[in-house]
Formats: sequence, C-alpha cells, structure tokens
Amino acid sequence: MAAFSQDFRSKRKTIGFVPTMGALHAGHLSLMRVARRENDVVVVSIFVNPLQFGPQEDFRRYPRDMKRDFRLCLKEGVDVIFFPDVRQMYPKEYKTQVTVEGLSDRLCGEFRPGHFKGVATVVAKLFNIVGPNIAYLGQKDAQQALIIAKLAEDLNMPLKVKIMPTVRERDGLAMSSRNIYLKPEERKDACVLYQALSLARELIKQGHEDCAYVIKKMRQLIQTKKTCRIQYVAIVDTKSLQSLKIIKKGALIALAVKIGSTRLIDNIIV
Amino acid sequence: MAAFSQDFRSKRKTIGFVPTMGALHAGHLSLMRVARRENDVVVVSIFVNPLQFGPQEDFRRYPRDMKRDFRLCLKEGVDVIFFPDVRQMYPKEYKTQVTVEGLSDRLCGEFRPGHFKGVATVVAKLFNIVGPNIAYLGQKDAQQALIIAKLAEDLNMPLKVKIMPTVRERDGLAMSSRNIYLKPEERKDACVLYQALSLARELIKQGHEDCAYVIKKMRQLIQTKKTCRIQYVAIVDTKSLQSLKIIKKGALIALAVKIGSTRLIDNIIV
Repeated sequence: MAAFSQDFRSKRKTIGFVPTMGALHAGHLSLMRVARRENDVVVVSIFVNPLQFGPQEDFRRYPRDMKRDFRLCLKEGVDVIFFPDVRQMYPKEYKTQVTVEGLSDRLCGEFRPGHFKGVATVVAKLFNIVGPNIAYLGQKDAQQALIIAKLAEDLNMPLKVKIMPTVRERDGLAMSSRNIYLKPEERKDACVLYQALSLARELIKQGHEDCAYVIKKMRQLIQTKKTCRIQYVAIVDTKSLQSLKIIKKGALIALAVKIGSTRLIDNIIV
Repeated sequence: MAAFSQDFRSKRKTIGFVPTMGALHAGHLSLMRVARRENDVVVVSIFVNPLQFGPQEDFRRYPRDMKRDFRLCLKEGVDVIFFPDVRQMYPKEYKTQVTVEGLSDRLCGEFRPGHFKGVATVVAKLFNIVGPNIAYLGQKDAQQALIIAKLAEDLNMPLKVKIMPTVRERDGLAMSSRNIYLKPEERKDACVLYQALSLARELIKQGHEDCAYVIKKMRQLIQTKKTCRIQYVAIVDTKSLQSLKIIKKGALIALAVKIGSTRLIDNIIV
C-alpha cells in the first residue's frame, strides 16, 4: 500500500482516503463518492481494529463481508482497497500508542475506555501508510472525527480531514454497520434516537436555551421506548466537547443509547 | 518547512534529517556529515522541546546559542535549519501525545517520568513536518534512539532511522550539550563514566558473564569520585531494555550519573 501511494504521489496524483471497518453502508458510500469527485485516486481501507474494542465489546461478532464490501467499493470507482490483517498492523512487538488528551475521555470515551486511543493509533498508522491528501470521515461518529482531525493537526500530518454529513434511513435512523444487530422491535424503537435529536432542534428553534431542559425532554422521549437504555444525552461545545449550560451556535447534541444489546450513537449540530 | 520538503520530494531529492536541541557539538556534526554524504538535502532542526523536560529539570537553563549553531550547520553544508518556536509546535489547544509503551519507563525513564513521551511526541511531529528519507540519531542517547526507531516503525512512517556511534572527548567523555555545566573538578571526575564502561568491556573480555558482578565493579569505580552520584548502572537487552542476568552478544551497558547538579548518561554495546 505504501509503495502504491508513493508511486501515486511521485506522479502528482492526489489521494482521497476513506478509512472503514468494512460492513459498508450508504454512509461509507457517500464518503467514497465525494472522495472520487475530489481526487485522482481513491483508497478505502477495511480493517476491524481490535485496539478500539473493549474486552466486553463486539470485536469478534462485528459484521464482516469482504466480498460484498469489495463489490460496493468497485461500484463506487475505488482504485485501491487496503485490507491489512491484525498481525501486519500490530506485530508481536508493537508498542506505540497515540492519545488525544481531553477529547478522548468524554461522551463515548466514558463508556468505552481506551476506545479513542485505539482509534487514534490505528488512524495515525493508516494515514502514514496511505499518505492521503484528504481523508473523509462521517459526522455520525462526531467525537471520532473530531479526535482524528485533532491528531492530524497536532502531529503536523500533511493532509486535510473532511467531515461529511450523516446518511440516514427514511425514518431518520443514522446508517451504522451495527444496525443489522437490531431485532425487528428494536429496529422500530431505534428511530427514537433521531426523533430525540429532532425534538431538541425544535425546542431550540422555539427559543429554549437551557441545555438541562432540552436534555430532560430528550431523555423523556427516549424513555418511552422500553428496549432503550440511555448511556448519555449531552449538549457540548463542538471543539472542546465540554458541556454547555446555555445553547450556543454550533453546539453538538449527541447521544448514545443501548437498544437491547446494541449500542447506537447519533448527533446533530444546531 | 513542510512546503520546502514537499518541494524537495516532488523533485525526487532525498532528505537526510538530524533533529537536535541545538548547543551543537562534535556528535551532532558527525551526524550532519553522514547525512550530507548520503542525501541530496540535509535538514537540521533546532528545538529545545519543553515536553521532554521535567518540572525540576534544566529546560530554562539548557544552553542556547543560535548564532554559533547556525555557523556550525552552514560549515557542514546543511541546506535547511528548521527552528520552530514553542507556540508553533504546541499551540494553546495542543492535545496529542505519542507513547512507546514498555520502553519508556525503564533506565532514564525511571528518573525522568514523561521524558520519553515528550521525545516521542516531538519527533513524530518533526518527522511529519520534515518528511525525511533517513533520520540520524546518536548512540549516546541509546534509549531515545531505540524509542524513536520503534515509533517510526510502529506508526509506519515512511523513513529509515540510522543510529550513529557516540563521539567522545580525548579522555573518553561522551560529547553532550550538558558537559558545559561541569565545573573543573566535576569535568575531571566525569571521565569515570567511560572508564566504568571500559572496565565492563574488559571484565567481559576476561570471561566474566555475571551481570551483577560487572555492575558491582562499575559502581565501585564510579563511587571513588566524590562528585558522582549514580542514578543507574544497567546491563540490558538492546531491543527490549530488559535487564540481563548473564551477558549476551549485543548487550547494552548503560549508566546515568549525577556529577554535582549535572546529569550525564553514557553507554556501550558489547
């Protein structure tokens, strides 16, 4: 992969990069489409990164379907699919970790200790291997996108990170590889995540400014669904992820909810 | 600097890089000379990195003499001197850290907590900015060189790290920017570091294999100098830095000694 990229660069071709864990959905495909439009070469990585899963999490059962993923990538005109195996990425003597302090222990980081260290580390490696001009990430994983953009900036990586809008199902559920875990009843209840975010947007439009009030209303709505257990509902500053008391322009409203045994996240910027 | 490097690379010029904290001495110059011989372009960075100094250490009084350093670099045919300031390297919102676990808490790391995290972080940044083909480091800072080589490998950085021999004064004292701190009597005593290493080499040549015995003899020799306080004398595996019981080929014999208020390190590979 590194040799391919070096060759592309020596021919002055720009490289657009979409890092994924496979199990591709319409959200990933929308990133590939922008990458295709904006670059000479499009690289997609498919790597289920063990470092970002906790011991009780779904690393082993995370959906994997290479054949389907390859087909989808080719259909989008992807030039290179990079799918290293775990031992190539983390040989036995592997020792280096990348952390983005202050952003990694909030929101999802509170419920998934070590998760964002795993994300930052693998993405630093992927960026160095692929050497993209632009990397494309989805807004659905807002905290992840923020951390990756921060690490690329902090470590002076010669690339740009673009964060693209969340792609949703018709009922508003954000596209996620984990949606396939949902049982039929859970799938119905899952649309409450986006309904809660839409309710927040509506309340703010009506003039409500007190974050505690908005969060209370969101929680009440989510709690009407009996398959749902809230992990967090938060209104934070988009850059620092610090909680806000009063709504301000560009605030991030984010939530994580367990539906049955499936953990889903979603967010909007208001 | 990044723009310069991109331009060099687009012209297929190879870049040799010598990262320094300035206060250049014959050791640094020897690195520049190899870099000059092996590359189209030679870049030297001069940056006293606050992240790698502890609160009680010598960040503020660390010797700085840009004019002299510039003159020396130019004499060695250096093409670019990169001297960022602290606020450029670590803006107010800086958050990212690089750690090389398992190698950073031993030897010097035990006496300088956080030191190697600061080293790994700044070097990751410098490597991304300068984009060298080869980086040149001195064997005198054996642990630092090992950690930097490991992080470059682990993070898949597209460069090679070369570790060059320690340059010494006529009495064996390893070149160090900190040698200028030594008072006349301390300077005389300081040659005991290399004498202890030479004694170890001699004992091993005579057939001694028991590390504890060799270390005891080294400590006894150093303790004859009343300005010297030993921090550590260690015989370790060159790759893992784990202590050895029995000498083996390629063992690293390393020591750190405080002479008055000046901390000096040295090492040999036997």
